[in-house]
Amino acid sequence: MSGPGAGTVGFTGGRLDRADALRHDPAALAAAVRDPRAAMLSLAADGSPVVADGRLVWAPVEPGADLALLGLDGDNGERAPRFVALSAAVGGAASFRSPVMMAALASLREGEAATFAAARSLLQWHSRHGFCANCGHATAPFRAGWGRACLHCRAEHFPRVDPVVIMIAEHHGRALVGRQAGWPAGRYSALAGFLEPGESVEEAVARETWEEAGVRVRGVRYVASQPWPFPHAQLMIACVATAENDAITLDTNELEDAMWVPRAEVARVLAGEEGAFLAPPPYAIAHTLLSRWADGL
Amino acid sequence: MSGPGAGTVGFTGGRLDRADALRHDPAALAAAVRDPRAAMLSLAADGSPVVADGRLVWAPVEPGADLALLGLDGDNGERAPRFVALSAAVGGAASFRSPVMMAALASLREGEAATFAAARSLLQWHSRHGFCANCGHATAPFRAGWGRACLHCRAEHFPRVDPVVIMIAEHHGRALVGRQAGWPAGRYSALAGFLEPGESVEEAVARETWEEAGVRVRGVRYVASQPWPFPHAQLMIACVATAENDAITLDTNELEDAMWVPRAEVARVLAGEEGAFLAPPPYAIAHTLLSRWADGL
Repeated sequence: MSGPGAGTVGFTGGRLDRADALRHDPAALAAAVRDPRAAMLSLAADGSPVVADGRLVWAPVEPGADLALLGLDGDNGERAPRFVALSAAVGGAASFRSPVMMAALASLREGEAATFAAARSLLQWHSRHGFCANCGHATAPFRAGWGRACLHCRAEHFPRVDPVVIMIAEHHGRALVGRQAGWPAGRYSALAGFLEPGESVEEAVARETWEEAGVRVRGVRYVASQPWPFPHAQLMIACVATAENDAITLDTNELEDAMWVPRAEVARVLAGEEGAFLAPPPYAIAHTLLSRWADGL
Repeated sequence: MSGPGAGTVGFTGGRLDRADALRHDPAALAAAVRDPRAAMLSLAADGSPVVADGRLVWAPVEPGADLALLGLDGDNGERAPRFVALSAAVGGAASFRSPVMMAALASLREGEAATFAAARSLLQWHSRHGFCANCGHATAPFRAGWGRACLHCRAEHFPRVDPVVIMIAEHHGRALVGRQAGWPAGRYSALAGFLEPGESVEEAVARETWEEAGVRVRGVRYVASQPWPFPHAQLMIACVATAENDAITLDTNELEDAMWVPRAEVARVLAGEEGAFLAPPPYAIAHTLLSRWADGL
């Protein structure tokens, strides 16, 4: 098992140069497709990455395939063009929980999961945006797969990323963790929720902690961020906040349970020992957040 | 002129409780609409807020109007329901630059602009999402205006918020600022750009600074965040980063100019004195970011 190194945030550290200029230059893009070093990401039928020796597997570009440009691989100065076929399988909303997907993610070396996350996020967005939200007519990809344009009203649409706040409320050396009904037995994690229009990160953290657990917080501090590609593209923004008290009032539509866990117990669980709960996987930012908090953040 | 207080981030500090539970409870929502204290946000024909004495103006709820629930006003313990009519004018993409809008924003007391930002963001989203991106059929509002459901394929759509990184690269006590071609004469601000699927905040900051100004950065530090409702809902994530060197290579498609400004000069300009550039308005997080950097962040 590989996964992100200690202190590294999962799904980050990708080594592709996104080469934004190429997206705007049809001639250069066409040349990149014809480049003998060009390659296309291999994905399994359920949308999970094909992995060999901890690395993503790439295949020759299929002639005539509708492609999105993932970037240029600068690993060895070659700047080899890297694509994903828009016809590739993206998998359903539940595909994250498939054993194949989880094993693939756990086996990827640092940085490789970031490339997969970008590819999956793009594919998922295309798969659900064949039509124009403004007028209802068909859309078609443009800008090397980084947008769709309406063939009727000409509206341009760009891949969506939903900001999500994920946070630990702390109270006298204990962290608030919760669990959703569908999670694996024993799993607890940081609370999380979608940021809404008209609020800051700090306000979203306070609102979600109040809505889900009935806990008021202040002093929100940003810790780290992570792209998360399941079921669609999200930006996870991880924070710590200070709870005003430790009385929990659960919103049972959101959480099945929530509890306060002392720092030493969080550290034990993250180290893989049996304890009060089962920790989130290393590639989830909840793991990073709990680790940094356990380390005395 | 009112605007956010010193150190406060514009468009934050709203005092409405968003009352998420009400959105899921049609009977309670109907009762809230009938509540004699219920009120509807007044908006001018160009989408700008109607302001009196630094406060938003509210009108009685129009019978039969299609409403979005902004929240409950907890200012005086009353929890008076607050709505916006989905038929209200949202104004075009250029409406932010109208003198009426800018004067209204500058005159609002702290917290009032946050309520306007939420209302405008919702209205703008509804105005551009009458159809299902998944199947092209018509959608209709649900969940008290916080979603639209497809009448054909039943897909549910929720208001979109685009994460944007906005940042200062610093190099030996100087900050990198840039200007876009369409801005008021002399205006310079922090660089900014949309975060893309598959990248973290830190990675987006590095990519955008490289793409727009040819400057490599490391050590990205989060500073603050802000909701921004123009032309559509964005989450501005403000950061500072350390530049590896000070050679600027401009992307002239993005920026008209960029320059390094010493700390003391930034402080002078923010204090309203004449200087190397015209500062961004106080309700923009670029102003907060430059202020905190000038204060020695």
